[in-house]
Amino acid sequence: MKIGLFTATFLDTRLEEVCKMAAGLGYQAVELPAFSGNPHLDLDEVLKGSGAKALAKMIGGYGLAISALANHPEGQIVLGPYGKDTDGICKGSKEDKIKFGSERMVKTAQAANALGVPVVTGFVGCENFGRFFPWPYSKGWADMEQEFVERWGKILDKFAEYGVKFAHEPHPNQLIYDVDTALRSVQLMGGRKEWGFNFDPANLIYLDIQVERFIDELKDRIYHMHAKDGEVVEHNVKRSGRIPQGDWQRLGRGFRFRIPGWGSVPWK
Amino acid sequence: MKIGLFTATFLDTRLEEVCKMAAGLGYQAVELPAFSGNPHLDLDEVLKGSGAKALAKMIGGYGLAISALANHPEGQIVLGPYGKDTDGICKGSKEDKIKFGSERMVKTAQAANALGVPVVTGFVGCENFGRFFPWPYSKGWADMEQEFVERWGKILDKFAEYGVKFAHEPHPNQLIYDVDTALRSVQLMGGRKEWGFNFDPANLIYLDIQVERFIDELKDRIYHMHAKDGEVVEHNVKRSGRIPQGDWQRLGRGFRFRIPGWGSVPWK
Amino acid sequence: MKIGLFTATFLDTRLEEVCKMAAGLGYQAVELPAFSGNPHLDLDEVLKGSGAKALAKMIGGYGLAISALANHPEGQIVLGPYGKDTDGICKGSKEDKIKFGSERMVKTAQAANALGVPVVTGFVGCENFGRFFPWPYSKGWADMEQEFVERWGKILDKFAEYGVKFAHEPHPNQLIYDVDTALRSVQLMGGRKEWGFNFDPANLIYLDIQVERFIDELKDRIYHMHAKDGEVVEHNVKRSGRIPQGDWQRLGRGFRFRIPGWGSVPWK
Amino acid sequence: MKIGLFTATFLDTRLEEVCKMAAGLGYQAVELPAFSGNPHLDLDEVLKGSGAKALAKMIGGYGLAISALANHPEGQIVLGPYGKDTDGICKGSKEDKIKFGSERMVKTAQAANALGVPVVTGFVGCENFGRFFPWPYSKGWADMEQEFVERWGKILDKFAEYGVKFAHEPHPNQLIYDVDTALRSVQLMGGRKEWGFNFDPANLIYLDIQVERFIDELKDRIYHMHAKDGEVVEHNVKRSGRIPQGDWQRLGRGFRFRIPGWGSVPWK
Amino acid sequence: MKIGLFTATFLDTRLEEVCKMAAGLGYQAVELPAFSGNPHLDLDEVLKGSGAKALAKMIGGYGLAISALANHPEGQIVLGPYGKDTDGICKGSKEDKIKFGSERMVKTAQAANALGVPVVTGFVGCENFGRFFPWPYSKGWADMEQEFVERWGKILDKFAEYGVKFAHEPHPNQLIYDVDTALRSVQLMGGRKEWGFNFDPANLIYLDIQVERFIDELKDRIYHMHAKDGEVVEHNVKRSGRIPQGDWQRLGRGFRFRIPGWGSVPWK
Amino acid sequence: MKIGLFTATFLDTRLEEVCKMAAGLGYQAVELPAFSGNPHLDLDEVLKGSGAKALAKMIGGYGLAISALANHPEGQIVLGPYGKDTDGICKGSKEDKIKFGSERMVKTAQAANALGVPVVTGFVGCENFGRFFPWPYSKGWADMEQEFVERWGKILDKFAEYGVKFAHEPHPNQLIYDVDTALRSVQLMGGRKEWGFNFDPANLIYLDIQVERFIDELKDRIYHMHAKDGEVVEHNVKRSGRIPQGDWQRLGRGFRFRIPGWGSVPWK
Repeated sequence: MKIGLFTATFLDTRLEEVCKMAAGLGYQAVELPAFSGNPHLDLDEVLKGSGAKALAKMIGGYGLAISALANHPEGQIVLGPYGKDTDGICKGSKEDKIKFGSERMVKTAQAANALGVPVVTGFVGCENFGRFFPWPYSKGWADMEQEFVERWGKILDKFAEYGVKFAHEPHPNQLIYDVDTALRSVQLMGGRKEWGFNFDPANLIYLDIQVERFIDELKDRIYHMHAKDGEVVEHNVKRSGRIPQGDWQRLGRGFRFRIPGWGSVPWK
Repeated sequence: MKIGLFTATFLDTRLEEVCKMAAGLGYQAVELPAFSGNPHLDLDEVLKGSGAKALAKMIGGYGLAISALANHPEGQIVLGPYGKDTDGICKGSKEDKIKFGSERMVKTAQAANALGVPVVTGFVGCENFGRFFPWPYSKGWADMEQEFVERWGKILDKFAEYGVKFAHEPHPNQLIYDVDTALRSVQLMGGRKEWGFNFDPANLIYLDIQVERFIDELKDRIYHMHAKDGEVVEHNVKRSGRIPQGDWQRLGRGFRFRIPGWGSVPWK
Repeated sequence: MKIGLFTATFLDTRLEEVCKMAAGLGYQAVELPAFSGNPHLDLDEVLKGSGAKALAKMIGGYGLAISALANHPEGQIVLGPYGKDTDGICKGSKEDKIKFGSERMVKTAQAANALGVPVVTGFVGCENFGRFFPWPYSKGWADMEQEFVERWGKILDKFAEYGVKFAHEPHPNQLIYDVDTALRSVQLMGGRKEWGFNFDPANLIYLDIQVERFIDELKDRIYHMHAKDGEVVEHNVKRSGRIPQGDWQRLGRGFRFRIPGWGSVPWK
Repeated sequence: MKIGLFTATFLDTRLEEVCKMAAGLGYQAVELPAFSGNPHLDLDEVLKGSGAKALAKMIGGYGLAISALANHPEGQIVLGPYGKDTDGICKGSKEDKIKFGSERMVKTAQAANALGVPVVTGFVGCENFGRFFPWPYSKGWADMEQEFVERWGKILDKFAEYGVKFAHEPHPNQLIYDVDTALRSVQLMGGRKEWGFNFDPANLIYLDIQVERFIDELKDRIYHMHAKDGEVVEHNVKRSGRIPQGDWQRLGRGFRFRIPGWGSVPWK
Repeated sequence: MKIGLFTATFLDTRLEEVCKMAAGLGYQAVELPAFSGNPHLDLDEVLKGSGAKALAKMIGGYGLAISALANHPEGQIVLGPYGKDTDGICKGSKEDKIKFGSERMVKTAQAANALGVPVVTGFVGCENFGRFFPWPYSKGWADMEQEFVERWGKILDKFAEYGVKFAHEPHPNQLIYDVDTALRSVQLMGGRKEWGFNFDPANLIYLDIQVERFIDELKDRIYHMHAKDGEVVEHNVKRSGRIPQGDWQRLGRGFRFRIPGWGSVPWK
Repeated sequence: MKIGLFTATFLDTRLEEVCKMAAGLGYQAVELPAFSGNPHLDLDEVLKGSGAKALAKMIGGYGLAISALANHPEGQIVLGPYGKDTDGICKGSKEDKIKFGSERMVKTAQAANALGVPVVTGFVGCENFGRFFPWPYSKGWADMEQEFVERWGKILDKFAEYGVKFAHEPHPNQLIYDVDTALRSVQLMGGRKEWGFNFDPANLIYLDIQVERFIDELKDRIYHMHAKDGEVVEHNVKRSGRIPQGDWQRLGRGFRFRIPGWGSVPWK
């Protein structure tokens, strides 16, 4: 296993600088952002002429591997929400968003292939996460599962062509967010190998899930991992509960993301 | 404090039978459903001629008070979600739903007034509960709060005229669901007395909230109460987390509602 | 072991009425208050003529035994505090209080002897409980222990003469209040058999002591027991701590006494 | 926020040596002891001629600020206990002690002003901490609160003149020792700004208080802080309880102070 | 599911009396002991002439079903221990014990068949339970597993012939005692349907196993159940650990069996 | 107290190399293995001519003391198990094993004496640990205790002659494994000073014992210590319980040994 750095944390710094720093700190890999307009990686550039080759060479020159291309925003809009919630990712109708998101995810896989990167990480989206509660519409979740099979099935067909896997990151506000929905998604996708997970323990303890249970039950489907931490803030959680709303800086939140080792993830 | 029965649990039995049974069991009050088409109470009947008088007489005849009229479904559609999620409550466009929901809630207050009932209980709704998470649209929650102030402000103006209070039931999938959002809503409503809560401890422990904290911080805003219980299912919660999706009968759920005393609510 | 009732809970009812009620409820014994002026038992009456005989006959007539005479207030003033804190028990100088308290405790033993009661329960007192903390005067606790040996030693000499045991009730604000001080007191008293304890679990969980530990380490010194319960009030204790000050009715207290079975004592 | 060193930990070393050491270790501030006879700071010297100027210069020369003057012992005797408990601080009658303590605290403020130090830390005292329990004298605590208002009110008037704040350190055996008494003291002092707290988490976990609750409810009254730690000793606390008496070296204590990070304070 | 009584608890009472009592208390079934010499059921009698018919008639006459025949001791000696440990069950050499135990278990199945009882409960035995620890002989456990397959395989062949299932009761000191060994045994037995479990939650919490996990993972192999309870004795377990040795009456044990509802099994 | 290294962890390295490394890392002592055939220490060599002198000189040359000779395997066979379980230690009959084990332990003491080492560490053995459970043979444990007294009594007589103490390491699968059996063994040995313990906290938390309780109750009998750690693996223990069987590498084990600081031992 290689220890890597997700360069999107340093979008204000040129990619080569970030790689230099990462290599200097002993990292062995980088995960690169792939969404439109990000300053670190332009999918079209990668796919044009010797773009992939040049990029791979630069990164390899620092002794680094590319562990994954990450495209969370453009994956999100495949299943929604639509409307203003995702206008910042792609302005347009529901249909526009689905089309754009799907095409961009395929292009991300194509670029991964060109770069020799085995995995694309991201989100699958979720039109209305409130449907986890079976009222007022008990079929809401099943409807979204059907859309997941249809839309992501087509995308994964292309991933299969490119020999690239997709690693969804289970997370609150995603169609797949716990052990049950993860197992269900594997079943819905017929066990196809292009479908797996980016294991991020912080997103799981968020909801009171024991991260080892996810590993035990999904282990051969974990294709990538984020060393992210989160803290269940004991003196707040009894007021705000497990899924507090609002800004990350709000002091009263019962959950907040933390630097690895300072949160509630049992790293040992 | 009177101990009452929410008659909506027995919609397949005639209201008078339910009242008879409740009185026989020693209950002192009933909470009556007010949504369209329910077989226990028709708002239009109540408001027509001596309808209210007759109903009050029948119930009083069993030595029972009416603690509240309950209208959760028609309150829900004031803030959404819209579309198919709430077509079962009111089929129509977003605007249709808002209009219908608002009018019905006002009519519920009018009927409460006619019956001498001080409180209407219900839900305020929530267009997309997933917006508790500040990505992909960080202003989503604030937008919904604004709509809450506008739409429910107008409804509460009418409640004020009728001398009736509204008691929202904090619950997952509602705009107001924890201590923080409850305090915030009081502030958003400018502290007006028509706005308060139906305290239901099961909905709070659901999210890991300590129910006594809700009482301590909102006590003079609690206008009604439900003695509902819920269980954090220890051997499941580490897999499904605190907000499991799916059917109530699914065995693997980390949370399920229970008969009072058999769940995790600390009744003592 | 007999189950008894401490009649001091019903000082507004005549003793005989209380006995009648207790017998009717199935109690097998009563514990009688012995402090001056209490309406249930007057030590001087008991010791005069056939007083003891008459009282014993009345109580025996209801099929009840007397498990103990209780004299907490007059035991308290043997070791203090003095001044206004105990003027309600005995107005006077420190010396007056010590003398009065000592004499009354001896008289309680004498009356117990006359009634054939094997145990007197009570408190030993504590001049300044704040001395548990070794600053500003590190020898304060040891000084009080010395006074305990001197004053209570003399009292227990008389108990020995009367063949009666004293059962101190470990409690916050007493010189003996936990397992350590209980063991130490046995040692300070040279292991004399007149010295033992009235085991009251509520007073121990108060301070986070595991009641079984008290039993395991002091078992042959437990001469009497109170089935009292207390609750560590979870939502308050994190604010007021384990030793909240103020009135028992104050809602914010982190500890309150409760009816047996409704508190934190593990009765099973 | 500056990280400082309380020099009273090194009373056997000359102040300048301590400052040198502190600066060398990267500390940014010092808190100086102000009680009579301590070898680091003599209030009379500071207030004489250019005493303050010279001291400030020496300390500033090491790049250090003075965060506070600390005077716990002489604050203690303002509210007691009196008698032998505090003869080590000031020998004399109750009245002598109150007078001396009050004057010394005022002089400490005067010296703080002369040195440009914004805060004096200390204890307010408590005549008999056992009064937290409402028996045998239920008005005992209220009496002490009244004395607090009278005596410390006068002292704080002088603090106001000198533009210095007093930061009481909540602690067992003090009149103010938990969240409730801290809030109450702010109210008793009419909200005056000279009255606030020296936040010391070890003293709070001692009694099972959640330190974050103190911060949440008193935050704008915290004028200074001690990074002290304490350990609830799990294998002892079930025997000795939360407020064990006796020497700090006694192995069986259920609570002991520890070096920061080795105790039960949640520093993260 | 029927609620039954294991008559072996009342071996000093005639079986018919026990059945009468059980029926009177509302039980719906009985589990009968089958080991040699027990006064309730003699396998040879059952298998002789109309023995089975008569017994079934008597029990059926009280409205009771026979849920299972229980034969723990004679199952135990199939896998040991041998020597004096099991001389009380069958005196003889290791080979004698294996032969006797195997034959008796087969006969128990035969009698179950004759009585129309679907299940035999019991223990499989374990030569040396200390082999759970892989030192000093790391292959010890695997050796015992092999013997289990051989000896119990033959016994279960006969069970198959009689159409009866065997329900082993996982328990400390048995080859199958936790979720892992239970799953492993199903695999070792090639999934044959004659092999399953008598679910006894007390035996599982004994070792800190969550009983629901056993149900989740072995549910279709649970053929019978014991409503037995056990208590992890909190004030002892930290001294004696989870597997205390010695007599059940020893007060210091960290675990003891209890009446259902008074132990640590989460019945709700 | 000296910090030492148990050289048996590096049996593939020459003893002198290990001592060199240990000294370089700052260790102050070594514990040497004494069982037959180990490459670090040959008891016969030590006892021959100047063997002890030479070894002591070499080790002392690196500034190291010898804290103990360790002989766990040859102690084990004194009490068993016998048969194939311990053929790897000594092939032969039960009597052979007892004789060989006893003689080797005596020789270990003799060598310790020759080297000036005050303690021998090891195991006492246990014929069948399953006898902790009082069925099927309730006298099994008492029988083993009797053998312990007889066989180890004779061995300790020799230890007494050599002026060396034996420190048994309480451990699952040993006759002495918790606080109760440790106290009992001291009693069985009549309090003789040659009998004590090698305190190894990992072996105690294994069974849910609080290590401080062992220290509190046996403190003057702890003659040596191992800084070993172990982890109660939370996500597994609910399935495999506290005493999982099988290989140390098996991922599903509820307990595993860990590097000090990474387990569940409370080192602080």
